[in-house]
Order: sequence, then structure tokens, then C-alpha cells
Amino acid sequence: MDYATTTPVDPRVLKAMAPFWSADFGNPSSIHSLGVVAERAVLEAETDIAKVLRAHRDEIIFTSGGTEANNLAIFGVVEASRSRGVSYKKMHAITSVIEHSSVLECFRELERRGVSVDYIPVSEEGIVDTEMIKEKIKKETVLVSIMYANNEIGTIQPISKIAKLLRAFKNRPIFHIDASQAPLYLDVTVEKLGVDLMTLDGHKIYGPKGVGVLFKKRGVSLRPILFGGGHAELRPGTKAVPLIVGMAEALKIAATEREKESKRLITIRDFLRKELVAVFPNVLLNGGSDNCLPNILNVSFPGVDTEFLTLQLSEAGIFVSTKSACMRDEKDSYVIKALGSRGRKENISASSIRFSLGRGTKESNIEILLKILKRSL
Amino acid sequence: MDYATTTPVDPRVLKAMAPFWSADFGNPSSIHSLGVVAERAVLEAETDIAKVLRAHRDEIIFTSGGTEANNLAIFGVVEASRSRGVSYKKMHAITSVIEHSSVLECFRELERRGVSVDYIPVSEEGIVDTEMIKEKIKKETVLVSIMYANNEIGTIQPISKIAKLLRAFKNRPIFHIDASQAPLYLDVTVEKLGVDLMTLDGHKIYGPKGVGVLFKKRGVSLRPILFGGGHAELRPGTKAVPLIVGMAEALKIAATEREKESKRLITIRDFLRKELVAVFPNVLLNGGSDNCLPNILNVSFPGVDTEFLTLQLSEAGIFVSTKSACMRDEKDSYVIKALGSRGRKENISASSIRFSLGRGTKESNIEILLKILKRSL
Repeated sequence: MDYATTTPVDPRVLKAMAPFWSADFGNPSSIHSLGVVAERAVLEAETDIAKVLRAHRDEIIFTSGGTEANNLAIFGVVEASRSRGVSYKKMHAITSVIEHSSVLECFRELERRGVSVDYIPVSEEGIVDTEMIKEKIKKETVLVSIMYANNEIGTIQPISKIAKLLRAFKNRPIFHIDASQAPLYLDVTVEKLGVDLMTLDGHKIYGPKGVGVLFKKRGVSLRPILFGGGHAELRPGTKAVPLIVGMAEALKIAATEREKESKRLITIRDFLRKELVAVFPNVLLNGGSDNCLPNILNVSFPGVDTEFLTLQLSEAGIFVSTKSACMRDEKDSYVIKALGSRGRKENISASSIRFSLGRGTKESNIEILLKILKRSL
Repeated sequence: MDYATTTPVDPRVLKAMAPFWSADFGNPSSIHSLGVVAERAVLEAETDIAKVLRAHRDEIIFTSGGTEANNLAIFGVVEASRSRGVSYKKMHAITSVIEHSSVLECFRELERRGVSVDYIPVSEEGIVDTEMIKEKIKKETVLVSIMYANNEIGTIQPISKIAKLLRAFKNRPIFHIDASQAPLYLDVTVEKLGVDLMTLDGHKIYGPKGVGVLFKKRGVSLRPILFGGGHAELRPGTKAVPLIVGMAEALKIAATEREKESKRLITIRDFLRKELVAVFPNVLLNGGSDNCLPNILNVSFPGVDTEFLTLQLSEAGIFVSTKSACMRDEKDSYVIKALGSRGRKENISASSIRFSLGRGTKESNIEILLKILKRSL
């Protein structure tokens, strides 16, 4: 029940990757036939991904994961602006307070460089304040970066609504979304969303760790963050063909199974929520029940040391998280904190726990979880 | 015969990676037991790599490959200096003219930012001019980056000699080497080499594509080039456990088989060289015959279009390169050009060809190659 942290590689994905380790192991940049086979595999992966996103093949950039894709998007936009003669101090950017650390840390770095940044708060349900985005935009705003669905509480942000409001501005800022948690459950067609840049991550969608994608709309100019290759390549380095093939396969499967799997998990998640509320009257739900990913349920057990609970559950073979694994050394969750404390006791964020379901979760697992939770609590 | 471009993943490496795709697929940052298993695998990989380098476990940083490791080393040093208040214009750095593009492009970017850079030439045999490095160093020099062994001509640079001369300076610059081509054939123990930073690349040593290592000596301070994670991490992002495990396994095997495999390949390479000189009196050897990797032989057939020859050989099932695959869109090789033209006709660089041998190469392969070369030429 920790699928939002990372997923196992789907056997179909592993199978698609298999030929490219030791047989068709060429470097796509080689001109001989071993290279051509590898290049064709990369082209096919780009085509498959573009199809799911309803994008163009040349809009797909492979990275080493979600973190690099977010970095490339954020620094890419700002440094491209700088190449056109705009100084850091003349730039403004907007993000939300509940972004993933690989987005937030980029914005903190931008601030260190002199860019001014507005961090948009969220409602008690975890939805970003769209009106405030509108208010904060000025002619210096070069970038707006908002996550599609939150990794801790699962809330889905009104992306196309934000895209629409951005379009009303004359100097429309570039719009980036971190969609790492989205493709398994949400529509990721870029035109419908209205985004310029979108981050995807392999290991969140039953693909391999070590690969991600940045969708970059034609016409959007980015400066590279890594340098190499023969000429100005946006992302140099030998292409990791097996990972790229795996990423494409994972995304294709996600798109095919999205509807059915979402329905299945909503039933299980709602059962879990209903039972938790029934059995533990103190339990508090973090994030809303609408506009939420089908697989995430985040709750607080006030006064309970959920880090200890996590270890107890682990002993019993049940894996959950108290907060983003990427923030493991922090005391509590900044996402839960950001939800505000109206009518809530303090310390909710230190007693939160996230159940995130996935392809392996059955209703019978929930019953086992409830039994063990009862015993532990 | 294109093993210097990329290598197939060794079956032993694949086997070591296998459990971490779908079974022990945890995120090393999770506190539950699935995470602990993954974390332990990463720690073990760090320990194994450190053992081969005779380094400390905490000196091993995993990246997405050689390109990222080189970028992290070069920008990491310069930006760390900048954090201490030194401006780009007050910094100087040194590299050679025959570095890999993932090093050269970083230095070109440094120049764009205002850093002054000296590119050290090489002898006709492809050895960097150590005396000139000594002459060029000044108190502003923050970084010297020299490759250990060249990917196109195989020449081995006098790394420990350079390290020694650097130690004579009061404000000793940081010394980085790109050792991507080295571990299969050369000693990579860092103390003996005397280096502060060293790049390794998985797919050059029968490991997976998509993973590399930067060795960073304790006490050397780098600024990160990617941002994320809970606090100041040098390299954020979910650790690609299977790739990391594969990298360690590949390096261990390389170290174990180094001596035996070097001897075997020297015999085969020398046979190829002898035969080429005997059969094609016009052939020119690029790079020296001493101080050269056992597996690389780079020659020019003056007047021959070796790109076309490469395609002819590919038809016959023999894979070679004319130049670095990373420079595929360039007309000819800047490495061969850099060797100078004393006593040579022009256009040597456009008629060069690289044979790079590996674990699958047998002496009988050379005989087939020679037969087909005779027919084609």
C-alpha cells in the first residue's frame, strides 16, 4: 500500500526491455545496423509516448527521471529567458506550496539566484488557489509550475482551468506541470490540459527507475542543464535504450488500463475510508474526497506516532508511508501542514499516514490491514 | 568491433540486477522493510565500488551516466567556488583538446559564463602536454580535467604525473579525470592516480546504460547541478536500484578480469595492426602504440570514405566507428585532427576508422575482418 512511492516493474514492461540489454545493445548514435536497431527502438518509444499524450514525437525528451525532468523544465525556462537578455532579478515565477521536493527545491534555487517566486497556498482540501495565481501574475512572470496530482494526498489540481486563465495574459508565462502521479489514473493529453511542459516518471507507473520524460511543446525554448554531444542537444548522453523502451511500454499499458483500474481502486479505497471512519472515530481525512486520485488515501490519527506505526505495519508485511520518501529526514509532512488547521488539533502533520493502492491491491488486503491497525492502535 | 561505443550487458550483471525490478523494487528512502532491502542493495553497491577504487563508501555518487558525472564534476567545482564568492571572471580552468564531448561542451559553457579556459594540445601520439599544463596553472585555476584514456585513439594520459605536478602548487586546483574507458583495462585506484574526482560509466564496462558514478574525494566540495530531496543532497532523485547494482557488479567483474583480458586483447589487437600494415601499405596508425588501451586500434586509410566503409562492414555484420558516436553529426574527428599533420597528408581525420575489441572478440574475427576489408578497399 505504498504504490505512490514506487511501483514494481510490470512483467510486460520487463519483457519489452529484455532484448535491449545484451542482444540489441547498440548506441542509437552509431551508424551501423546495431545502432540503427537501437535508434529505431527509441523512435518507436517516442512515437508511442507521443500517441498517449497526443503530442508530436519531437516533443518527447527522455531524462533520468522525474527529478531531472522537473529541473530541466524549471531551469530550462529561466535560463532560456536569461539567454534572451532578461536578468534573474527581472524574472518572476509561480508554484504551489504542495509541490514535490524536486520542484520546490528548484524554485528555492531560483530565489537564491535572484528570481522572485510566489508560492500559492492550497485550500483545506489541498486544491491550489486559482484566483491567487491570477492575482500574482505580472508581466515579469516567465513560469507557472503546478503539479497535476499530489503524491501525498492525491488531490487533483484544476490544470486546464489554470491553463485557460494563463492564456488571457498577453505575455503568457510558460506552464509546466509535474504529472508524475497522473498517467495511471488521469487523462494526460497535453492539448486538453493546455500545458507547455509536462513531467512523467517511469517508476511511478510500473516502469523502470532511472527514466523520465519531459514533454516540451514545439516552440517552447529551453536551455539545457546538462552539456555534451556534438552540437546543441537539449539532453546529451548515451540514450538508455532499455529504460526508454520500458517507459513507453509502461505508459501505453497505463493508458489502456486507466479506466478499468481507476474504477476498481475507487471501490477498494472507498471501502477503506468507510471502514477507517467507522472503526476509528478520531481519524481525520487529509485532502478532499472529490478531485482525488483513485489510489491515495491520506489520514491522520491524532496523537499517534505514525512513523512507529509504519514500522509495526512493515513487520506485518504491510508497507505504507507517513510522507514523501524524498523527505525522509524531515520531521513531518509540509503537504499536510499546508492544508491549514481550521478546526483541527495541532500535530496532524506528524500523525498522518498515506495508503496508496495499486495493481496488486485486493479488497481482502484491506481487511487484513484493518485487523492489524485495530491491534496496533 | 565497436566496444568503445557501448558494450552489451554481461549476463552476470543482468542476473545481479534481476531481483530489483519487480520483487525487491522498493525505494531506498522508504523506512519500511521493502525500502530497507533496496537501501541495503545501494549501500552494498557503494561498498563494492569503493573497494575497487580503494575509496570510501561515502565518496561514491551515482549519476545517470558518464555525461552527468562529468557535468557534476565540472560545474560542481566551479559553482562551489562561486558560492564562496569567486566570480566566473576570476576563475580559470584547464582541460585538453581531445576530451570527450561531455567534458568539452561543459568547458565551452564555462567560457560562455566568463571562466577562462586553456585547452592543452596533445602530441602526435595523442598524449597531453604535461609541461604546458604546468605553465598554464595560475592562482585562479580552480579545475584541471583530463581524460584517463581516450575513447577514439585509446591513448592513456599520464594521470599520476599530472596529479604530482598539481600537488606542487600552493592553491592546488581540483583534479578531475574522465575514466569512462578505463576500468576494463587500467588501474582505477584513486589514491595511486592522485585524483579528486573521477567519472565512470556503466555501459562502457558491460553494465547497463543509464548509470554512472562520480568518485568525489572527501573534503572536495561540489555544488549540485540537480535540485530536489529533503535537504541539500548532492544528487537528488529516486535511486535507480537495479542500475546501481548492475554498475557495481560490472565494475567488480572488470577489476577481476582486467589483467587476463588485457593480455588476450593485446595479442589480438597487435595481430590486427601487423596485418593491416602488411596488407595496406598506405595505412596510417593514429595514436601511439605504447600507452594505449589494449582494445583500441585507430587507423586512417588516406583517401577512403570510411563512413561508407563503415556501412559496408555493417552489411557484412562487422560493427566499427569512424569517430565518437556522440559526434555523429560532425564531418570528421576532432581527436584525429588534434594529432597534428606532421608528415601526413590532409584529410586523415575524415578517413579514420576505429576498431575497438572486447569480450566477444576472437582472433578468427580479425581474419574475417581482414578478408572483407581487402574486398572493400
